[in-house]
Amino acid sequence: MSPLNTVSGEATRLPFPDWMHGVQGRVETALARHLPPAEAIPARLHQAMRYATLNGGKRVRPLLVFAAGELSDAPLPRLEVAACAVELIHSYSLVHDDLPCMDDDVLRRGRPTCHVEYDEATALLVGDSLQSLAFEILARTDFADEGSRQLEMLALLARASGSCGMAGGQAIDLAAVGRTLDQPELELMHALKTGALIRAAVLLGGFCGSALGSDERDCLDRFAKRVGLLFQVVDDILDCTASTVTLGKTAGKDAAAAKPTYVSLMGLERARELAADLGLQALAALTSFGERSRRLVELTDFITQRKF
Amino acid sequence: MSPLNTVSGEATRLPFPDWMHGVQGRVETALARHLPPAEAIPARLHQAMRYATLNGGKRVRPLLVFAAGELSDAPLPRLEVAACAVELIHSYSLVHDDLPCMDDDVLRRGRPTCHVEYDEATALLVGDSLQSLAFEILARTDFADEGSRQLEMLALLARASGSCGMAGGQAIDLAAVGRTLDQPELELMHALKTGALIRAAVLLGGFCGSALGSDERDCLDRFAKRVGLLFQVVDDILDCTASTVTLGKTAGKDAAAAKPTYVSLMGLERARELAADLGLQALAALTSFGERSRRLVELTDFITQRKF
Repeated sequence: MSPLNTVSGEATRLPFPDWMHGVQGRVETALARHLPPAEAIPARLHQAMRYATLNGGKRVRPLLVFAAGELSDAPLPRLEVAACAVELIHSYSLVHDDLPCMDDDVLRRGRPTCHVEYDEATALLVGDSLQSLAFEILARTDFADEGSRQLEMLALLARASGSCGMAGGQAIDLAAVGRTLDQPELELMHALKTGALIRAAVLLGGFCGSALGSDERDCLDRFAKRVGLLFQVVDDILDCTASTVTLGKTAGKDAAAAKPTYVSLMGLERARELAADLGLQALAALTSFGERSRRLVELTDFITQRKF
Repeated sequence: MSPLNTVSGEATRLPFPDWMHGVQGRVETALARHLPPAEAIPARLHQAMRYATLNGGKRVRPLLVFAAGELSDAPLPRLEVAACAVELIHSYSLVHDDLPCMDDDVLRRGRPTCHVEYDEATALLVGDSLQSLAFEILARTDFADEGSRQLEMLALLARASGSCGMAGGQAIDLAAVGRTLDQPELELMHALKTGALIRAAVLLGGFCGSALGSDERDCLDRFAKRVGLLFQVVDDILDCTASTVTLGKTAGKDAAAAKPTYVSLMGLERARELAADLGLQALAALTSFGERSRRLVELTDFITQRKF
């Protein structure tokens, strides 16, 4: 039995890096199984879907799903499906964001972006198909007698992805290029663009197990929103401090495109203070969960201190 | 009470054109309600989503949902949600298909296409967001105690939309430009590109009411596949015989782009014979349903004889 086959007991005592690599490996394998085989017709599209997804991403959202699952003692097979669904949505968004009519980027996770490696039309269909696949696997998997909870999860993921979530944030981002946003406007953009899907990952993980009380749901939601914002502030800091090689994507791109970032708004020093403060706020929301939130605490520290 | 408030009884005795206009009006109103308000942030994206969807399309797929719903005596509010979900997927596919990297079309339903009226990045996000919204409304609506059936419908719609359905058919279509396809290859392309979503519309309608027996499901599926192919053959015929004004989209475009069509493969006369034959095969699959299939019969005749 793999150490991941149980959430409680031995597995929770794995050192954080081992736990993280275990989840990443499990998710990589599960994604490879959920994606259509590379040789299935239409083969070029399926190859491109696998190229865009199976590339050793950090899998931050799946890690949040699995860590939040410990709060509700969730079965690992359910967490795996929820994690894959969220990651497929994330992968689709990267493929579409990189297209020439959006951010026009050529490098992603250290490799040519999907439309560079294949072509624009294929990349468009890759994103479209990855989105469909996310909902298909989440609807298809048998969560036993939990039909209504599963429908709630589907609705949550769909809303987080659409015009009132991730895609809406991208629209605000596009409209903001060259303008000066104040901090509340910047926070709204990020709450949608990055935050909505990160929040969905946390909540989906929490919903995979035994039902949480309404106070617990509130705490988890507060954590989810804080950690989503934290992730983006750290992203902005890395965009202007890390190298392209370290990031695996074009560094300094946001600044060059005159995109509003936390660093351009408040400077590097204050952005770092904000990140530290958000990290503390996120952790404070978890206190009532006690030891059950240990992985979420470790993961929050990891997100705060990440270098890539 | 509107004559559409009951499926059996008076409503089924409405003349077909009145029934059709009733469903079209009901779906238009429901779509307007499900789409985010035009002024909600991000307003430009939401305006564009409404522009791309609320444009008086023929609503063939919603009509199929409602007509198939009569087989299972389905409640109209459920049919309305299923019809809107299918139509949102269809609308998203039109917006993306019209993009410059795909078919590069400027006219749709008699108006400028979404990327011409707005811009490419917005049109990309419109399609992405319409797809999310389709799954959101189908998951969010309370189908009472039918959670597992609702999940089956979600999985069916997602699969019909993705790389093994509509998006996959579009990929085969792109790869086929300038090549000669034989009839089986052309049928596979259309079975995915147009057929998968039409099949989903029919099955979703049938699944909205009382459970169908496995023989009935088989018959309905046979009908669904035939009518999907029929729709495409008629589309190919209209592309080379109708005018741009009548179609509301650029006529003769497939021929000009050297795209394989039934007319280019077998000539106009034999394509017309094929359409008539498919119409008969579709009707034959419905015989065991008797009077319950009256709307589907009428709708099949309408699809066979449509002029736009």
